[in-house]
Amino acid sequence: MGIQQMSDLSSQVLELMRRRQSVRKYSDRPVEREKLERCFEAARLAPSACNAQPWSFVAVTDREILSRLRENLFNKPYHMCAFAREAPVLVGLIAEPTTFWPTVGGLWRGVKFPLLDLGIAGEHFVLQAAAEGLGTCWLGWFNEREFKSILRLPRKKKVAALLSVGYAEADDPLRDKIRKPIDDIRTCL
Amino acid sequence: MGIQQMSDLSSQVLELMRRRQSVRKYSDRPVEREKLERCFEAARLAPSACNAQPWSFVAVTDREILSRLRENLFNKPYHMCAFAREAPVLVGLIAEPTTFWPTVGGLWRGVKFPLLDLGIAGEHFVLQAAAEGLGTCWLGWFNEREFKSILRLPRKKKVAALLSVGYAEADDPLRDKIRKPIDDIRTCL
Repeated sequence: MGIQQMSDLSSQVLELMRRRQSVRKYSDRPVEREKLERCFEAARLAPSACNAQPWSFVAVTDREILSRLRENLFNKPYHMCAFAREAPVLVGLIAEPTTFWPTVGGLWRGVKFPLLDLGIAGEHFVLQAAAEGLGTCWLGWFNEREFKSILRLPRKKKVAALLSVGYAEADDPLRDKIRKPIDDIRTCL
Repeated sequence: MGIQQMSDLSSQVLELMRRRQSVRKYSDRPVEREKLERCFEAARLAPSACNAQPWSFVAVTDREILSRLRENLFNKPYHMCAFAREAPVLVGLIAEPTTFWPTVGGLWRGVKFPLLDLGIAGEHFVLQAAAEGLGTCWLGWFNEREFKSILRLPRKKKVAALLSVGYAEADDPLRDKIRKPIDDIRTCL
Protein backbone atom coordinates (compact mmCIF):
# COMPACT_ATOMS: atom_id res chain seq x y z
CA MET A 1 0.00 0.00 0.00
CA GLY A 2 1.55 3.34 -1.05
CA ILE A 3 1.98 6.30 1.27
CA GLN A 4 -0.74 8.35 -0.44
CA GLN A 5 -3.22 5.51 -0.12
CA MET A 6 -2.33 5.04 3.55
CA SER A 7 -2.84 8.71 4.16
CA ASP A 8 -6.24 8.59 2.41
CA LEU A 9 -7.15 5.56 4.45
CA SER A 10 -6.38 7.26 7.76
CA SER A 11 -8.74 10.14 6.87
CA GLN A 12 -11.38 7.73 5.65
CA VAL A 13 -11.33 5.56 8.74
CA LEU A 14 -11.56 8.56 11.04
CA GLU A 15 -14.38 9.97 8.91
CA LEU A 16 -16.14 6.60 9.09
CA MET A 17 -15.94 6.75 12.89
CA ARG A 18 -17.32 10.29 12.79
CA ARG A 19 -20.25 9.18 10.60
CA ARG A 20 -21.02 6.01 12.55
CA GLN A 21 -23.86 6.72 14.89
CA SER A 22 -26.34 4.68 16.87
CA VAL A 23 -29.27 4.16 14.51
CA ARG A 24 -32.65 3.92 16.24
CA LYS A 25 -34.94 4.42 13.24
CA TYR A 26 -34.82 1.63 10.68
CA SER A 27 -36.34 1.39 7.22
CA ASP A 28 -37.87 -1.97 6.28
CA ARG A 29 -35.30 -2.46 3.51
CA PRO A 30 -33.84 -5.91 4.05
CA VAL A 31 -30.13 -6.31 4.71
CA GLU A 32 -28.18 -8.15 2.03
CA ARG A 33 -26.79 -11.44 3.28
CA GLU A 34 -23.33 -10.76 1.83
CA LYS A 35 -23.07 -7.47 3.73
CA LEU A 36 -23.96 -9.24 6.95
CA GLU A 37 -21.36 -11.89 6.20
CA ARG A 38 -18.66 -9.25 5.74
CA CYS A 39 -19.60 -7.78 9.12
CA PHE A 40 -19.16 -11.20 10.72
CA GLU A 41 -15.86 -11.65 8.91
CA ALA A 42 -14.74 -8.31 10.38
CA ALA A 43 -15.69 -9.53 13.87
CA ARG A 44 -13.93 -12.84 13.28
CA LEU A 45 -10.66 -11.05 12.50
CA ALA A 46 -10.63 -9.13 15.79
CA PRO A 47 -7.81 -9.56 18.30
CA SER A 48 -8.47 -11.10 21.73
CA ALA A 49 -6.52 -12.00 24.86
CA CYS A 50 -4.22 -14.93 23.95
CA ASN A 51 -6.19 -15.16 20.69
CA ALA A 52 -8.87 -17.11 22.59
CA GLN A 53 -11.67 -15.59 20.47
CA PRO A 54 -14.15 -15.98 23.34
CA TRP A 55 -17.23 -15.02 21.35
CA SER A 56 -20.07 -16.27 19.25
CA PHE A 57 -22.80 -14.49 17.34
CA VAL A 58 -26.40 -15.31 16.50
CA ALA A 59 -28.02 -13.28 13.74
CA VAL A 60 -31.79 -13.41 13.44
CA THR A 61 -33.59 -12.40 10.26
CA ASP A 62 -36.25 -15.13 10.20
CA ARG A 63 -39.63 -13.38 10.32
CA GLU A 64 -41.20 -15.70 12.82
CA ILE A 65 -38.29 -15.77 15.28
CA LEU A 66 -37.76 -12.04 14.87
CA SER A 67 -41.40 -11.48 15.64
CA ARG A 68 -41.10 -13.43 18.89
CA LEU A 69 -37.95 -11.52 19.86
CA ARG A 70 -39.70 -8.21 19.13
CA GLU A 71 -42.62 -9.20 21.32
CA ASN A 72 -40.56 -10.37 24.26
CA LEU A 73 -37.18 -8.65 24.55
CA PHE A 74 -38.14 -5.02 24.95
CA ASN A 75 -41.08 -4.94 27.33
CA LYS A 76 -40.78 -3.12 30.65
CA PRO A 77 -38.30 -2.52 32.17
CA TYR A 78 -36.46 -2.88 28.84
CA HIS A 79 -38.70 -0.53 26.85
CA MET A 80 -35.89 2.04 26.50
CA CYS A 81 -34.63 -0.18 23.67
CA ALA A 82 -38.06 -0.73 22.08
CA PHE A 83 -36.80 1.02 18.92
CA ALA A 84 -34.90 -2.18 18.17
CA ARG A 85 -38.23 -3.85 17.31
CA GLU A 86 -38.07 -2.07 13.95
CA ALA A 87 -34.65 -3.46 13.02
CA PRO A 88 -34.67 -6.15 10.29
CA VAL A 89 -31.75 -7.94 11.94
CA LEU A 90 -30.94 -8.61 15.59
CA VAL A 91 -27.54 -10.05 16.46
CA GLY A 92 -26.78 -11.60 19.84
CA LEU A 93 -23.20 -11.17 21.06
CA ILE A 94 -22.29 -14.06 23.32
CA ALA A 95 -19.31 -13.90 25.69
CA GLU A 96 -18.02 -17.46 25.54
CA PRO A 97 -15.70 -18.93 28.18
CA THR A 98 -12.11 -18.10 27.39
CA THR A 99 -9.10 -20.40 27.55
CA PHE A 100 -6.97 -21.25 30.61
CA TRP A 101 -4.45 -18.37 30.64
CA PRO A 102 -6.84 -15.48 30.03
CA THR A 103 -9.10 -16.97 32.71
CA VAL A 104 -6.32 -17.23 35.29
CA GLY A 105 -4.72 -13.97 34.19
CA GLY A 106 -8.09 -12.24 34.25
CA LEU A 107 -8.73 -13.37 37.82
CA TRP A 108 -5.27 -12.16 38.84
CA ARG A 109 -5.66 -8.85 37.06
CA GLY A 110 -9.33 -8.32 37.96
CA VAL A 111 -10.34 -7.95 34.30
CA LYS A 112 -12.91 -10.10 32.53
CA PHE A 113 -11.06 -10.42 29.25
CA PRO A 114 -13.97 -12.02 27.33
CA LEU A 115 -16.03 -8.88 27.89
CA LEU A 116 -13.22 -6.60 26.72
CA ASP A 117 -12.70 -8.93 23.75
CA LEU A 118 -16.40 -8.88 22.88
CA GLY A 119 -16.32 -5.09 22.81
CA ILE A 120 -13.45 -5.28 20.33
CA ALA A 121 -15.09 -7.87 18.07
CA GLY A 122 -18.52 -6.26 18.25
CA GLU A 123 -17.10 -2.92 17.20
CA HIS A 124 -15.37 -4.55 14.23
CA PHE A 125 -18.89 -5.64 13.19
CA VAL A 126 -20.28 -2.16 13.79
CA LEU A 127 -17.56 -0.35 11.83
CA GLN A 128 -17.75 -2.77 8.93
CA ALA A 129 -21.54 -2.30 8.94
CA ALA A 130 -21.05 1.48 8.81
CA ALA A 131 -18.69 1.03 5.85
CA GLU A 132 -21.40 -1.07 4.17
CA GLY A 133 -23.89 1.77 4.61
CA LEU A 134 -25.73 -0.06 7.41
CA GLY A 135 -26.89 1.38 10.71
CA THR A 136 -26.41 -0.41 14.01
CA CYS A 137 -27.00 0.17 17.68
CA TRP A 138 -25.32 -1.53 20.63
CA LEU A 139 -28.03 -2.75 23.05
CA GLY A 140 -27.09 -3.73 26.56
CA TRP A 141 -30.61 -3.51 27.92
CA PHE A 142 -32.96 -6.32 26.89
CA ASN A 143 -34.55 -9.44 28.33
CA GLU A 144 -31.66 -11.89 28.07
CA ARG A 145 -33.63 -14.78 29.56
CA GLU A 146 -36.28 -14.46 26.83
CA PHE A 147 -33.61 -14.18 24.14
CA LYS A 148 -32.04 -17.45 25.24
CA SER A 149 -35.38 -19.15 25.68
CA ILE A 150 -36.66 -18.18 22.21
CA LEU A 151 -33.38 -19.16 20.55
CA ARG A 152 -33.06 -22.30 22.69
CA LEU A 153 -29.62 -21.28 23.90
CA PRO A 154 -28.31 -22.89 27.08
CA ARG A 155 -29.24 -20.81 30.15
CA LYS A 156 -25.60 -20.53 31.17
CA LYS A 157 -24.65 -18.67 27.97
CA LYS A 158 -23.90 -14.98 28.53
CA VAL A 159 -25.53 -12.81 25.89
CA ALA A 160 -23.65 -9.67 26.88
CA ALA A 161 -25.22 -7.42 24.27
CA LEU A 162 -27.31 -7.26 21.12
CA LEU A 163 -26.74 -5.29 17.97
CA SER A 164 -29.71 -4.01 16.00
CA VAL A 165 -28.82 -3.83 12.32
CA GLY A 166 -30.54 -2.32 9.29
CA TYR A 167 -30.73 0.61 6.94
CA ALA A 168 -31.45 3.89 8.68
CA GLU A 169 -34.69 5.63 7.74
CA ALA A 170 -34.15 8.26 5.08
CA ASP A 171 -35.05 11.04 7.52
CA ASP A 172 -32.44 9.98 10.08
CA PRO A 173 -29.81 12.70 9.72
CA LEU A 174 -26.20 12.65 10.84
CA ARG A 175 -26.27 14.05 14.37
CA ASP A 176 -23.55 16.00 16.12
CA LYS A 177 -21.78 13.64 18.50
CA ILE A 178 -21.89 14.53 22.17
CA ARG A 179 -18.52 13.55 23.57
CA LYS A 180 -16.20 14.70 26.32
CA PRO A 181 -13.46 17.08 25.16
CA ILE A 182 -10.24 15.29 24.30
CA ASP A 183 -8.37 16.99 27.13
CA ASP A 184 -10.77 15.44 29.64
CA ILE A 185 -9.99 11.88 28.56
CA ARG A 186 -6.39 11.87 27.34
CA THR A 187 -3.10 12.73 29.04
CA CYS A 188 0.23 12.71 27.24
CA LEU A 189 3.38 12.31 29.30
CA MET B 1 -20.82 9.69 -0.03
CA GLY B 2 -21.54 8.01 -3.38
CA ILE B 3 -22.30 4.31 -3.79
CA GLN B 4 -18.98 3.57 -5.47
CA GLN B 5 -17.08 5.25 -2.67
CA MET B 6 -19.09 3.36 -0.05
CA SER B 7 -18.36 0.12 -1.80
CA ASP B 8 -14.66 0.94 -1.92
CA LEU B 9 -14.77 1.85 1.73
CA SER B 10 -16.31 -1.45 2.75
CA SER B 11 -13.48 -3.36 1.02
CA GLN B 12 -10.88 -1.04 2.49
CA VAL B 13 -12.13 -1.34 6.05
CA LEU B 14 -12.27 -5.12 5.84
CA GLU B 15 -8.79 -5.14 4.30
CA LEU B 16 -7.56 -2.89 7.10
CA MET B 17 -8.88 -5.39 9.65
CA ARG B 18 -7.14 -8.18 7.75
CA ARG B 19 -3.84 -6.27 7.80
CA ARG B 20 -4.05 -5.16 11.42
CA GLN B 21 -1.99 -7.52 13.49
CA SER B 22 -0.47 -7.50 16.94
CA VAL B 23 2.95 -5.95 16.48
CA ARG B 24 5.59 -7.24 18.91
CA LYS B 25 8.73 -5.97 17.14
CA TYR B 26 9.07 -2.21 17.05
CA SER B 27 11.54 -0.01 15.21
CA ASP B 28 12.89 2.99 17.13
CA ARG B 29 11.25 5.42 14.69
CA PRO B 30 9.31 7.89 16.82
CA VAL B 31 5.54 8.18 16.41
CA GLU B 32 4.31 11.51 15.08
CA ARG B 33 2.25 13.38 17.64
CA GLU B 34 -0.50 14.18 15.11
CA LYS B 35 -0.95 10.48 14.31
CA LEU B 36 -1.28 9.70 18.00
CA GLU B 37 -3.82 12.49 18.34
CA ARG B 38 -5.94 11.07 15.52
CA CYS B 39 -5.92 7.69 17.28
CA PHE B 40 -7.19 9.35 20.45
CA GLU B 41 -9.81 11.21 18.46
CA ALA B 42 -10.95 7.85 17.04
CA ALA B 43 -11.25 6.46 20.58
CA ARG B 44 -13.11 9.57 21.74
CA LEU B 45 -15.76 9.06 19.04
CA ALA B 46 -16.58 5.52 20.16
CA PRO B 47 -20.06 4.57 21.36
CA SER B 48 -20.65 3.49 24.98
CA ALA B 49 -23.55 2.42 27.19
CA CYS B 50 -25.77 5.50 27.70
CA ASN B 51 -22.93 7.50 26.12
CA ALA B 52 -21.19 7.49 29.51
CA GLN B 53 -17.73 7.36 27.89
CA PRO B 54 -16.30 5.55 30.94
CA TRP B 55 -12.69 5.74 29.84
CA SER B 56 -9.50 7.72 30.01
CA PHE B 57 -6.12 7.26 28.35
CA VAL B 58 -2.56 8.01 29.36
CA ALA B 59 0.05 8.01 26.61
CA VAL B 60 3.68 7.88 27.63
CA THR B 61 6.44 8.93 25.26
CA ASP B 62 8.68 10.77 27.75
CA ARG B 63 12.04 8.98 27.75
CA GLU B 64 12.50 8.98 31.48
CA ILE B 65 9.01 7.82 32.40
CA LEU B 66 9.05 5.28 29.59
CA SER B 67 12.33 3.95 30.89
CA ARG B 68 10.83 3.42 34.35
CA LEU B 69 7.78 1.69 32.86
CA ARG B 70 10.01 -0.56 30.78
CA GLU B 71 12.01 -1.50 33.85
CA ASN B 72 9.04 -2.25 36.06
CA LEU B 73 5.95 -3.39 34.14
CA PHE B 74 7.14 -6.51 32.43
CA ASN B 75 9.21 -8.41 34.95
CA LYS B 76 8.14 -11.88 36.07
CA PRO B 77 5.38 -13.02 36.01
CA TYR B 78 4.61 -10.45 33.32
CA HIS B 79 7.60 -11.22 31.10
CA MET B 80 5.34 -12.65 28.37
CA CYS B 81 4.76 -9.03 27.38
CA ALA B 82 8.41 -7.97 27.64
CA PHE B 83 8.40 -7.19 23.90
CA ALA B 84 6.46 -4.04 24.81
CA ARG B 85 9.68 -2.58 26.27
CA GLU B 86 10.74 -1.82 22.70
CA ALA B 87 7.64 0.23 21.88
CA PRO B 88 8.19 4.01 21.67
CA VAL B 89 4.70 4.67 23.08
CA LEU B 90 2.75 2.95 25.84
CA VAL B 91 -0.89 3.88 26.35
CA GLY B 92 -2.81 3.01 29.51
CA LEU B 93 -6.51 2.32 29.01
CA ILE B 94 -8.39 3.18 32.18
CA ALA B 95 -11.91 1.89 32.85
CA GLU B 96 -13.47 4.86 34.62
CA PRO B 97 -16.63 4.58 36.73
CA THR B 98 -19.70 4.85 34.54
CA THR B 99 -22.86 6.86 35.21
CA PHE B 100 -25.90 5.81 37.26
CA TRP B 101 -27.97 3.86 34.72
CA PRO B 102 -25.20 1.76 33.17
CA THR B 103 -24.04 0.96 36.71
CA VAL B 104 -27.48 -0.17 37.87
CA GLY B 105 -28.30 -1.79 34.53
CA GLY B 106 -24.93 -3.52 34.49
CA LEU B 107 -25.53 -5.00 37.95
CA TRP B 108 -28.98 -6.18 36.87
CA ARG B 109 -27.69 -7.63 33.62
CA GLY B 110 -24.44 -9.01 35.03
CA VAL B 111 -22.34 -7.11 32.50
CA LYS B 112 -19.60 -4.62 33.37
CA PHE B 113 -20.40 -2.10 30.69
CA PRO B 114 -17.24 0.02 31.22
CA LEU B 115 -15.11 -2.96 30.25
CA LEU B 116 -17.16 -3.64 27.12
CA ASP B 117 -17.01 0.08 26.32
CA LEU B 118 -13.26 0.17 26.80
CA GLY B 119 -12.89 -2.68 24.32
CA ILE B 120 -14.85 -0.64 21.80
CA ALA B 121 -12.92 2.59 22.33
CA GLY B 122 -9.54 0.87 22.49
CA GLU B 123 -10.19 -0.85 19.19
CA HIS B 124 -11.10 2.47 17.58
CA PHE B 125 -7.60 3.56 18.61
CA VAL B 126 -6.06 0.36 17.25
CA LEU B 127 -7.83 0.52 13.89
CA GLN B 128 -7.04 4.19 13.40
CA ALA B 129 -3.42 3.40 14.27
CA ALA B 130 -3.41 0.65 11.64
CA ALA B 131 -4.79 3.12 9.10
CA GLU B 132 -1.95 5.50 10.06
CA GLY B 133 0.58 2.77 9.33
CA LEU B 134 1.28 2.19 13.04
CA GLY B 135 1.53 -1.13 14.81
CA THR B 136 -0.13 -1.80 18.16
CA CYS B 137 -0.62 -4.64 20.58
CA TRP B 138 -3.30 -5.03 23.25
CA LEU B 139 -1.60 -5.93 26.55
CA GLY B 140 -3.65 -7.29 29.39
CA TRP B 141 -0.72 -8.74 31.28
CA PHE B 142 1.51 -6.18 33.05
CA ASN B 143 2.21 -4.88 36.53
CA GLU B 144 -0.73 -2.53 37.02
CA ARG B 145 0.38 -1.47 40.50
CA GLU B 146 3.75 -0.29 39.17
CA PHE B 147 2.06 1.50 36.27
CA LYS B 148 -0.12 3.49 38.65
CA SER B 149 2.72 4.12 41.04
CA ILE B 150 5.10 5.44 38.35
CA LEU B 151 2.38 7.62 36.81
CA ARG B 152 1.08 8.70 40.23
CA LEU B 153 -2.43 7.54 39.38
CA PRO B 154 -4.81 6.90 42.28
CA ARG B 155 -4.64 3.28 43.43
CA LYS B 156 -8.37 2.80 42.86
CA LYS B 157 -8.08 3.51 39.13
CA LYS B 158 -8.54 0.42 36.96
CA VAL B 159 -5.95 0.23 34.20
CA ALA B 160 -7.69 -2.57 32.33
CA ALA B 161 -5.14 -2.83 29.52
CA LEU B 162 -2.20 -1.18 27.81
CA LEU B 163 -1.56 -0.61 24.16
CA SER B 164 1.99 -0.68 22.85
CA VAL B 165 2.28 1.62 19.84
CA GLY B 166 4.99 2.19 17.27
CA TYR B 167 6.22 1.40 13.80
CA ALA B 168 6.76 -2.27 13.17
CA GLU B 169 10.29 -3.38 12.38
CA ALA B 170 10.90 -3.65 8.67
CA ASP B 171 11.32 -7.41 8.91
CA ASP B 172 7.95 -7.93 10.61
CA PRO B 173 5.88 -9.49 7.81
CA LEU B 174 2.11 -9.76 7.56
CA ARG B 175 1.28 -13.07 9.21
CA ASP B 176 -1.60 -15.37 8.40
CA LYS B 177 -4.28 -14.89 11.02
CA ILE B 178 -5.19 -17.90 13.11
CA ARG B 179 -8.92 -17.67 13.70
CA LYS B 180 -11.82 -20.04 14.24
CA PRO B 181 -13.79 -20.82 11.05
CA ILE B 182 -16.77 -18.52 10.61
CA ASP B 183 -19.22 -21.42 10.97
CA ASP B 184 -17.89 -22.09 14.48
CA ILE B 185 -18.68 -18.61 15.72
CA ARG B 186 -21.71 -17.41 13.78
CA THR B 187 -25.25 -18.78 13.46
CA CYS B 188 -27.86 -17.24 11.17
CA LEU B 189 -31.52 -17.89 11.93
